[in-house]
Amino acid sequence: MTYLAHINIMPLKELLDPQGKAVMNGLSNLGLKGIEDVRIGKHITLKIEAASEKDAYQLAEEASQKLLANQVMEYFEITVVPAA
Amino acid sequence: MTYLAHINIMPLKELLDPQGKAVMNGLSNLGLKGIEDVRIGKHITLKIEAASEKDAYQLAEEASQKLLANQVMEYFEITVVPAA
Repeated sequence: MTYLAHINIMPLKELLDPQGKAVMNGLSNLGLKGIEDVRIGKHITLKIEAASEKDAYQLAEEASQKLLANQVMEYFEITVVPAA
Repeated sequence: MTYLAHINIMPLKELLDPQGKAVMNGLSNLGLKGIEDVRIGKHITLKIEAASEKDAYQLAEEASQKLLANQVMEYFEITVVPAA
């Protein structure tokens, strides 16, 4: 069966995010009020052919650990859904 | 009240995603089998101080349209949740 794994890779909460800070200033300059913090990371979708949702999750986790995320600076969250 | 807006900005489905294709080849070289497609976009979280969830959503939508997403090449999805 085919699954879609949605992976969010974000800078660790303890670290500064200069890109996010720059975007926050940009939004403020555009006149958008009320935005207190901006953090920017990556969103990756994997289309996975696997026997079960659990297998698909494990593959996505292995991909994140081995290639997609740099765990010194980033953390990741995975959600797996059946592909439409 | 404080809300968190999670925004996913992804390349339009009609467009090629060369970065995703490169990552797919990388995962294949690492020996991970079963991954059929990879698409890479941005995940942005905005911390928003707003009167209601609807106001927070509208602010996030305006930010996406005016600054965050390039709608010629990208589409965006927004989910708003109360901040913990």
